[in-house]
Amino acid sequence: MLTVAEAEQIILNHRLSLGTEQVPLMQALGRILREDLRADRDFPPFDRVTMDGIAIRHERFAAGQREFPVDGIQAAGAPRLTLGRPDACVEVMTGAMLPEGTDTVIRYEDILLNDGRAEIRIAEMAFRQNIHFQGIDRRAGDLIVPAGRKIAPPEIATAASIGKSTLLVARLPRVAVVSTGDELVDVADSPLPHQIRRSNVYAVQATLLEHFGLAGQLFHFTDDRDLIAKGLQDILAEFDLVVLTGAVSEGKFDYLPEVLNALGVEKCFHKVAQRPGKPFWFGHFKRQPVIFALPGNPVSAFLCTWRYLMPFLRSSLGQEPAPFRTAVLGERVVFKPRLTYFLPVKTDNATNGILQAFPLPGHGSGDLANLNDADAFLELPLERDIFESGEFFPLIQYR
Amino acid sequence: MLTVAEAEQIILNHRLSLGTEQVPLMQALGRILREDLRADRDFPPFDRVTMDGIAIRHERFAAGQREFPVDGIQAAGAPRLTLGRPDACVEVMTGAMLPEGTDTVIRYEDILLNDGRAEIRIAEMAFRQNIHFQGIDRRAGDLIVPAGRKIAPPEIATAASIGKSTLLVARLPRVAVVSTGDELVDVADSPLPHQIRRSNVYAVQATLLEHFGLAGQLFHFTDDRDLIAKGLQDILAEFDLVVLTGAVSEGKFDYLPEVLNALGVEKCFHKVAQRPGKPFWFGHFKRQPVIFALPGNPVSAFLCTWRYLMPFLRSSLGQEPAPFRTAVLGERVVFKPRLTYFLPVKTDNATNGILQAFPLPGHGSGDLANLNDADAFLELPLERDIFESGEFFPLIQYR
Repeated sequence: MLTVAEAEQIILNHRLSLGTEQVPLMQALGRILREDLRADRDFPPFDRVTMDGIAIRHERFAAGQREFPVDGIQAAGAPRLTLGRPDACVEVMTGAMLPEGTDTVIRYEDILLNDGRAEIRIAEMAFRQNIHFQGIDRRAGDLIVPAGRKIAPPEIATAASIGKSTLLVARLPRVAVVSTGDELVDVADSPLPHQIRRSNVYAVQATLLEHFGLAGQLFHFTDDRDLIAKGLQDILAEFDLVVLTGAVSEGKFDYLPEVLNALGVEKCFHKVAQRPGKPFWFGHFKRQPVIFALPGNPVSAFLCTWRYLMPFLRSSLGQEPAPFRTAVLGERVVFKPRLTYFLPVKTDNATNGILQAFPLPGHGSGDLANLNDADAFLELPLERDIFESGEFFPLIQYR
Repeated sequence: MLTVAEAEQIILNHRLSLGTEQVPLMQALGRILREDLRADRDFPPFDRVTMDGIAIRHERFAAGQREFPVDGIQAAGAPRLTLGRPDACVEVMTGAMLPEGTDTVIRYEDILLNDGRAEIRIAEMAFRQNIHFQGIDRRAGDLIVPAGRKIAPPEIATAASIGKSTLLVARLPRVAVVSTGDELVDVADSPLPHQIRRSNVYAVQATLLEHFGLAGQLFHFTDDRDLIAKGLQDILAEFDLVVLTGAVSEGKFDYLPEVLNALGVEKCFHKVAQRPGKPFWFGHFKRQPVIFALPGNPVSAFLCTWRYLMPFLRSSLGQEPAPFRTAVLGERVVFKPRLTYFLPVKTDNATNGILQAFPLPGHGSGDLANLNDADAFLELPLERDIFESGEFFPLIQYR
């Protein structure tokens, strides 16, 4: 059986080809940037005053001058003034250009303004203080945000400041999210005693929407071989990515592996040495679409979504890898099967900068309710049985 | 001057009254749940088979029986069967009801099926193994998700499973996001040498959209007292929350505090002992709308959005408090002013479960580009000047 790392590598080798598209600035939020954002001008574009007050020539202060006639007002958003006489000052506003002929700004709190004259009331000041000098943050042409970044508010603000009213982002894949199983009824229906409502497809759809702005299309098939085959054939022709949930175990009515094979889908693997999610199946159809067939238990489907589907999508969209996070196990755990154990945990780091993960194992892969109490999985390697409190392990944080 | 904690407390004392609304399930993603989600039936609703295989009476195995005639197939989604004879077995599928009269499930891997008979090929098994028993996760009526939770994929899946095709969520406030300043031009415009493009309002708008699904409406006023007064009067009449950026310093054209006062807005405070963001102004108009007037420097406006506006909105929406996070300072920092210092940092915890924060101070509150390189602010208290590597402090992570 494949290990988690082997399964992950195979999946990443089949990433989608998606291309790019231009979208309006605010719609780019949460999308993956596919162009470098570079400074269109120097950052800042001029010597910018950072305090309201007066601008002077420092050499006059150094020479002992303490009173300066006010020669004008330099407002933010106004063309640059020039100091008329070297012994005068200009009132300057935050965000304004530093007047030509001045080099130092003194804030209002440190002067007395009276009858057109500014009296300086401090004994010391730094040459060139309170000025944000042209180009000190970035020079025109410098890289500010590299392609591959998930676009967050700072990137939106940066794009606005360099005049990008649209951005080049990765095109999103067309995704079908498919549930199977006679035991599943619609959210709006009342289940019979032997039935439950569909929930996995909503978890997958919500995750794709929340993290990629991707609206997956939902489908449902009952456990009818011909119906599944016909439905999947249409789906394979239309979508870039197909996420199936359920019907991949050993059961008599688990038609999916067989039907996918009959449709010409190439299986890459079936089963991974992990709990939950062992029956996970992965393949592709003529290279694209790629098919993730997730186990039907809700914790299994959710774990596989986070451990495999999300990195696959990030890679397909050209996103820089997510930061690798670890957490410290808060309690001793014993797990004997030769499987990687994805332990549901609740994280906390309020006390000392250490991210602690407290086990909330729940009642196995069927325990959907437990996902609401936990906020992450800790990935405990299959080579070991005993995991001590205080050891750190990779963390998959979903909340 | 107010401390950060004092300012925060005043702000939280003025939280908005917003009410609730019903929204379709998937649209509730990212919104704040305002009802408790309770189990509509037991979780699981029946004794649920967790492995494909056969179900038997354990006492027969304990008594030495190893061969069991197959009495039928219990499929997932089919009404519950009853074991015909105590010495027989039923083939059972994952997700199926445990047949009446059986109490233990043996997976296919541990049996041999031949000619209508199942031969058990393991020497030991646990009584009641491979069954997810009715009600073990939750009993009907039990709380699964408390009101106040930000709705993430597990909550969507849970709501689906209990039959909620709509959810009661907090109504979103009507938010105006207003920029002021003659130095600011539109994203699509070419700035003159003394001008820059608007960016703060986009950062605020993107943050509200990303974290609350809230579409703030944008406005811009040049530094004209009458224009600002007229514009704000209309805005105060229409919105629940007004976020202003710029024009709150000591400058000659910083009309906002004066205009707000003339319009009858009650000032709660102006200035907080912090860097960046000292000129931050906060007030309210007849209790609601509440007005956040943020300093115009991009890092100041962004910090105030994250440190004050976001907790204010969480509280107004009835959201449970965000987990308090800390990080370990990765390098010694000296900061002498008697101000709380919000230090831009880049976080990393790949190595040992410790979240480390590496200073990226940038070039002050005007350094927008630096926000793209950093991912958080570390909150360094005003009582101290020297902050040692290895100490931990509160963290505001914005990425």
